[in-house]
Amino acid sequence: MNSAGFFDVLTSFTDRSRQLLGRRDLALDQAEAAAGVVQLCEALLSGRGEASGMAIASEVLNRYLRLDETGRLMLFEAFAEKFGPDREKLSDAAKAWLDAPSDADASDLHYFSEARRQELFRRLNRAPGGTHALVRMRADLLELAPNRRDLAPLDRDLVHLLTSWFNRGFLVLRRIDWSSPAIVLEKIIHYEAVHEIRDWDDLRRRIDPMDRRCYGFFHPALSDEPLVFVEVALTQAMPDAIGPLLAEDRAPVALEQARTAVFYSISNCQRGLAGISFGNFLIKQVAEDLRRELPKLETFVTLSPAPGLARWLRRGEDVSVPEESRALLDSLDDEFWPQDAPAAERLRRVIEPLAAQYFLKAKRADGKPIDSVARFHLRNGARLERINWLGDRSIKGLRESAGLMVNYLYYLDEIEKNHEAFANHGEVVASPAVKKLLKPETRSRFARAAPASSG
Amino acid sequence: MNSAGFFDVLTSFTDRSRQLLGRRDLALDQAEAAAGVVQLCEALLSGRGEASGMAIASEVLNRYLRLDETGRLMLFEAFAEKFGPDREKLSDAAKAWLDAPSDADASDLHYFSEARRQELFRRLNRAPGGTHALVRMRADLLELAPNRRDLAPLDRDLVHLLTSWFNRGFLVLRRIDWSSPAIVLEKIIHYEAVHEIRDWDDLRRRIDPMDRRCYGFFHPALSDEPLVFVEVALTQAMPDAIGPLLAEDRAPVALEQARTAVFYSISNCQRGLAGISFGNFLIKQVAEDLRRELPKLETFVTLSPAPGLARWLRRGEDVSVPEESRALLDSLDDEFWPQDAPAAERLRRVIEPLAAQYFLKAKRADGKPIDSVARFHLRNGARLERINWLGDRSIKGLRESAGLMVNYLYYLDEIEKNHEAFANHGEVVASPAVKKLLKPETRSRFARAAPASSG
Amino acid sequence: MNSAGFFDVLTSFTDRSRQLLGRRDLALDQAEAAAGVVQLCEALLSGRGEASGMAIASEVLNRYLRLDETGRLMLFEAFAEKFGPDREKLSDAAKAWLDAPSDADASDLHYFSEARRQELFRRLNRAPGGTHALVRMRADLLELAPNRRDLAPLDRDLVHLLTSWFNRGFLVLRRIDWSSPAIVLEKIIHYEAVHEIRDWDDLRRRIDPMDRRCYGFFHPALSDEPLVFVEVALTQAMPDAIGPLLAEDRAPVALEQARTAVFYSISNCQRGLAGISFGNFLIKQVAEDLRRELPKLETFVTLSPAPGLARWLRRGEDVSVPEESRALLDSLDDEFWPQDAPAAERLRRVIEPLAAQYFLKAKRADGKPIDSVARFHLRNGARLERINWLGDRSIKGLRESAGLMVNYLYYLDEIEKNHEAFANHGEVVASPAVKKLLKPETRSRFARAAPASSG
Amino acid sequence: MNSAGFFDVLTSFTDRSRQLLGRRDLALDQAEAAAGVVQLCEALLSGRGEASGMAIASEVLNRYLRLDETGRLMLFEAFAEKFGPDREKLSDAAKAWLDAPSDADASDLHYFSEARRQELFRRLNRAPGGTHALVRMRADLLELAPNRRDLAPLDRDLVHLLTSWFNRGFLVLRRIDWSSPAIVLEKIIHYEAVHEIRDWDDLRRRIDPMDRRCYGFFHPALSDEPLVFVEVALTQAMPDAIGPLLAEDRAPVALEQARTAVFYSISNCQRGLAGISFGNFLIKQVAEDLRRELPKLETFVTLSPAPGLARWLRRGEDVSVPEESRALLDSLDDEFWPQDAPAAERLRRVIEPLAAQYFLKAKRADGKPIDSVARFHLRNGARLERINWLGDRSIKGLRESAGLMVNYLYYLDEIEKNHEAFANHGEVVASPAVKKLLKPETRSRFARAAPASSG
Repeated sequence: MNSAGFFDVLTSFTDRSRQLLGRRDLALDQAEAAAGVVQLCEALLSGRGEASGMAIASEVLNRYLRLDETGRLMLFEAFAEKFGPDREKLSDAAKAWLDAPSDADASDLHYFSEARRQELFRRLNRAPGGTHALVRMRADLLELAPNRRDLAPLDRDLVHLLTSWFNRGFLVLRRIDWSSPAIVLEKIIHYEAVHEIRDWDDLRRRIDPMDRRCYGFFHPALSDEPLVFVEVALTQAMPDAIGPLLAEDRAPVALEQARTAVFYSISNCQRGLAGISFGNFLIKQVAEDLRRELPKLETFVTLSPAPGLARWLRRGEDVSVPEESRALLDSLDDEFWPQDAPAAERLRRVIEPLAAQYFLKAKRADGKPIDSVARFHLRNGARLERINWLGDRSIKGLRESAGLMVNYLYYLDEIEKNHEAFANHGEVVASPAVKKLLKPETRSRFARAAPASSG
Repeated sequence: MNSAGFFDVLTSFTDRSRQLLGRRDLALDQAEAAAGVVQLCEALLSGRGEASGMAIASEVLNRYLRLDETGRLMLFEAFAEKFGPDREKLSDAAKAWLDAPSDADASDLHYFSEARRQELFRRLNRAPGGTHALVRMRADLLELAPNRRDLAPLDRDLVHLLTSWFNRGFLVLRRIDWSSPAIVLEKIIHYEAVHEIRDWDDLRRRIDPMDRRCYGFFHPALSDEPLVFVEVALTQAMPDAIGPLLAEDRAPVALEQARTAVFYSISNCQRGLAGISFGNFLIKQVAEDLRRELPKLETFVTLSPAPGLARWLRRGEDVSVPEESRALLDSLDDEFWPQDAPAAERLRRVIEPLAAQYFLKAKRADGKPIDSVARFHLRNGARLERINWLGDRSIKGLRESAGLMVNYLYYLDEIEKNHEAFANHGEVVASPAVKKLLKPETRSRFARAAPASSG
Repeated sequence: MNSAGFFDVLTSFTDRSRQLLGRRDLALDQAEAAAGVVQLCEALLSGRGEASGMAIASEVLNRYLRLDETGRLMLFEAFAEKFGPDREKLSDAAKAWLDAPSDADASDLHYFSEARRQELFRRLNRAPGGTHALVRMRADLLELAPNRRDLAPLDRDLVHLLTSWFNRGFLVLRRIDWSSPAIVLEKIIHYEAVHEIRDWDDLRRRIDPMDRRCYGFFHPALSDEPLVFVEVALTQAMPDAIGPLLAEDRAPVALEQARTAVFYSISNCQRGLAGISFGNFLIKQVAEDLRRELPKLETFVTLSPAPGLARWLRRGEDVSVPEESRALLDSLDDEFWPQDAPAAERLRRVIEPLAAQYFLKAKRADGKPIDSVARFHLRNGARLERINWLGDRSIKGLRESAGLMVNYLYYLDEIEKNHEAFANHGEVVASPAVKKLLKPETRSRFARAAPASSG
Repeated sequence: MNSAGFFDVLTSFTDRSRQLLGRRDLALDQAEAAAGVVQLCEALLSGRGEASGMAIASEVLNRYLRLDETGRLMLFEAFAEKFGPDREKLSDAAKAWLDAPSDADASDLHYFSEARRQELFRRLNRAPGGTHALVRMRADLLELAPNRRDLAPLDRDLVHLLTSWFNRGFLVLRRIDWSSPAIVLEKIIHYEAVHEIRDWDDLRRRIDPMDRRCYGFFHPALSDEPLVFVEVALTQAMPDAIGPLLAEDRAPVALEQARTAVFYSISNCQRGLAGISFGNFLIKQVAEDLRRELPKLETFVTLSPAPGLARWLRRGEDVSVPEESRALLDSLDDEFWPQDAPAAERLRRVIEPLAAQYFLKAKRADGKPIDSVARFHLRNGARLERINWLGDRSIKGLRESAGLMVNYLYYLDEIEKNHEAFANHGEVVASPAVKKLLKPETRSRFARAAPASSG
């Protein structure tokens, strides 16, 4: 008896399953193709899945990749409709628990209410490249069906699984430098979302000089894919503009002179992991590692854009300015405005108080600041340290942030306090200098509203 | 402003948290200590956990390790009682769903019924060494409270998380040989559960010769800890005894002569992962890799013990033997019985048919075979190929398996069919040779019951 | 007693040695600076060198790097003049050996005749980065003093040492692909000498597709520096032009279709290792590895330029052509000549026989072919297999090779024979097709001269 | 045309070369076998070696391994006799140089006097495993022909090459710990030459605790073979006995308490590299690395045996002791002498002054100390710091060192001075405490002879 040919699963399964399932050919229309995938998914959840699970899982993933957008959407609909929980068992469990509520019974209720698609995804993950494919699937879902309420439970389940799998404890921090594989570096170029990297020479200036660092989180199952990365400049003082920091001809700072680590760009890389936050952990880990390596570093600070400012200045309902200032604000539409120095100076006197209002007082419906970057760093426990006039003269900087840049300061002894002030009371912790920018009347109202923040 | 000292979290937190939480000293009695851990766990689930989560998580794990058995048990009880779901929200969700059952609502029901301890464990996992500590915690739970019904939901939640995290897709297959780190190899010596490895020389004979292989699954978060490993011998023919396979003075088989891969020992290493099955995947992956490396391999087979046989022969209610055979069976208690060749031959005539009955017909209450090893391989889709009289003359082999060893054959084209026959119909797929061992009357009954197995 | 500060050699030595040696400041003129290095070199060869050799060696190398061209040349002169052998001992040894010639005495003679600079270089090599610095020193010597007869013994000694240290047995073959570190890849772009790599996208097309390979030799002491690399295309048939091979829009060849490995570019990277040949070993090793990985490969062949052809056609004294062909040859000066198809066809009829003459009959003073690439592959035992008209339409290809490309075939069973025919008898082993290109009268002379080559 | 089968050199060459060289079978007698190897060596030095050098080199090495001792000795004789320099060319070069001595001509003389075996060894080194085989060959030469004057030039050439190849700049320092491969660790057990390692548990106690370190030099071409390794204990104070340092039940020293690094065992591993010194570099490199990692370390010191002391006490001609002391010395022959405390104390009063004489005054013919360990450390620039009575109570320690152990202190600011005092003037730099042990009359003579040493 000869078992050669054994387990040739990944390459041969297509043929076998086609035969087993009675498939005739691959030129199916998308509906038929999606139905085929659904059938395989049922097989994967059945006994057959136990015997040759990796083969079936691989086949599902291969077929998924061959579906077009219509096919994928059909599949998502099937996941949402047909792979929910077993309603009968769930119904019994819900009644039982309501009769006698207890933790133990809630456990039954919890596991009977788990949608079957969760086990399906866990089994798909067993295939080589499975994790990658599931992250991709989530990205497709976000792109193809951003607002479909019927697909929300599907998204919720995917997010739940991916959040659990991409737990901080499984992430690996890796330094990214000029010795990193090109396959990683090209992704840094591609994913940099804050200050564009034009080409490989530009990349090299960001990661190769001794006073530049780049770190990313990686997951062992996605080895060449950074999840999030941060670019760091080591400087003497807290910087007030991005231009000099990225200038081609700047002189590098000797390591023994560096006192400040500037986080000037944080970029998420995986669309499919949207909503799962890594940046918080990344900043803190990098700060910790840098401090261990370079004990002379004293200050950990960002140099950040204010990406919602310009839009708010133009449209914000709560922007109350005199008529003449309104005209000045209109001049922001001309991207050459910084070149007229006297006019720029006039603008500054109008915008700085407004910017302070934007960060300190203007709120979204949920009581949080309008600025997404501010929300991120304030939630992390950082303090709004300084607003830098004309810190970013790039077209993007002028268009989105009205040229302003912001330093958020990460200071250990205050982080917990800051975070709780922000998370529990919506308080924006800011330096006296920033508060002073508020117009007098605004400032006094601010002072009344948040007396505790005068640290 | 100077933020030196920033993020010195892992080393300094003990001091800070003591101060923050009003702890006076570490020499608490266990109840107080456990209560302190519980308090930290609540902090970890609160806003503070978001700001300095890794520090609190590390502190919880450190304190856990300092608890003694009483303290740990108290903590488990707290996990079971105090970290269940939010009952109010769950109650509302259960009612809502029962009013209008649907998948979307089940999603609410599912997530509101999740015990808070699951999020707690996920946050603990963020700390360095977190995964290791959680696996350890589960092992402690199994050891300290094996049958506590009130702790069952806690165990269920731990198993659920660990099953998800130790998904096959995250495991890495590594060959273990004489170039492996000693820290891994000592665990092979320690965990080998089937045929004891006496010392490093013995280990070397198992992994270093060219016709011997050892492979294990590893998880990236437990880098030096094998989860499960399998020892393989490359041979010409299917072996019928373990002695010659492990003999110190045996001549190795040249690779180009090898036609058979013998899986002669599979051992799980992590008590805390009990119930999460890796062996199935391991055997199939190793077989696949070996076949790619050595295309001349034709047969993939085990050489396995029958660890429940001797016990069944002595106590089994369904062992019906004539009185004189019963006396013979009693001689099994004397470990020197194989040395009396004529007596041994008489025993063989009694035991072989009984062994066939043991594997093919004797069942547990759930209809599955009594033998745990048989259940494992049959469930995997293997076939019971051969029963080898006196295949294991070791004391352990005589005491547990009455000296018998079994070959289970992994043959590709039959695996799915075999698995389904076993899983769905309880059928034990066996070779004609094994079936022939059954006594005539038994055989005929067997043939009637399972006509399809005559492959 | 406290030995803190112990061994802080690399950073502190400058100060100590300055003090010890009475150096006043670093702004010496070059003569003084070179003299300082010479003094340190003497210290390195003395007892002090034994005690703190690595520190002195590092200091020599650091100072070397701070010398300008004048200073380096002065140092080379000092190496040549002052670091020869001990003449007195050598004189005695020479006389002794001439009195009674024997192997044992030759050993004395050999070691007394070794220039002291060899030991000096060996001690310099002990410093971190020493090997790199010595390779750099040789490159400087070649560049700054290409034809100085008085420095030839210095060069000879450097070559001797480097040849010994860069022995094939110490080289490591590494595949270079898109997962290689950028620091290596940028060197591939930089050093590619045959078909220029324009940028990173171009590089990616050379190393990333499944039908493209790149391999280099590395030395453990120069870890990110390839010494030589070869670019390989996997194709179905032997290619006759470089354009289609490098076209941006070509379709890759599936691995299972590939029958031919084409070595289309070999580049040396280290100027300082000029004259030390690695290419021969590289081609053979890569061929061996490829054949193991892809057993279906049948043919190993180059696609090579003929870099001396155009020059020879224009100036070669032995190019005897009729007057009208001479005029045609002049048209080669116009880089657009291939666009006039009829004219190009006329040129072909003139050039192909001349090219055959160039490869098969035209010789340098030492009896070897004029073409450097031909000499390399023929010496390696390859056979001149095919001459491809207009195989390279690039400006460089037209200017240097008159647009021709050549396939050299590496065929195992003939390699030794071919090599010996070439090395011992100057015979160019060529295919019948190439020989047929010779004009009849030339061919017959060729046949008489080398009757054995008609294989 | 098909070149499949190309380059199958390593496996197929045996057949081809046998056929080419007319070899009939492998069962040759040793003379014939050695002659065959010589023939292949000539081929390797010829043109054939250029074409298929690695194959021939591999064949030479394989055949070498199949030769027995007689055959190897015959081969060594052939290397010595037949692979010397070309006498004719050398004769001309010697005369030419004597006529007009100059550096340039010495270069000719140097290279013509190089024995052909050097190029032979360089070519052998190209084969896979070549470096390993050549080191092995040197070990065989030392073992099979320790005092053959006719083979001395062969040994000299091997040493020359190996010294050049095992240059410090090519060695890699690796920490050896419980994560190291077993294949390396078993060599540590095997090669430990000073304080025997009994088994794997004993090994673990030496390398795994946090206050224990082990480092070795490795060469990239011998990847799993340590060349030399040192075992280090981190302690608070300078230790005076080996027993407590190696005790199974000792309590480890916390890293932050450690002030002293004790080099208590240095072992060379490669017999074939005898005479090529690595230990000096190893101690200094390890000290440097430790100081960087643990800035609190203040003292770097050895705990060393005095392996020639007992022998010298018994036989030394310059040991002048009164008759009654002589009788005491005889009691050293009884290995239980330390157990009689009063007698031991009497012995101490006799031996300590003699030990001081042994280290400070007794000399070999070349003026260096008798003790090999003393010579090693003193030459490295260490200072004889303390003599420890009954520092080693092991049988070996009593038998060789009369139970004494010695601390040699490595102190930066003195290393060069100490080395030069020792190397140039034979002065043994010692602490006042050691000098005080000398008997008064001896001491005064010592003081006169070496007045400078009273540092």
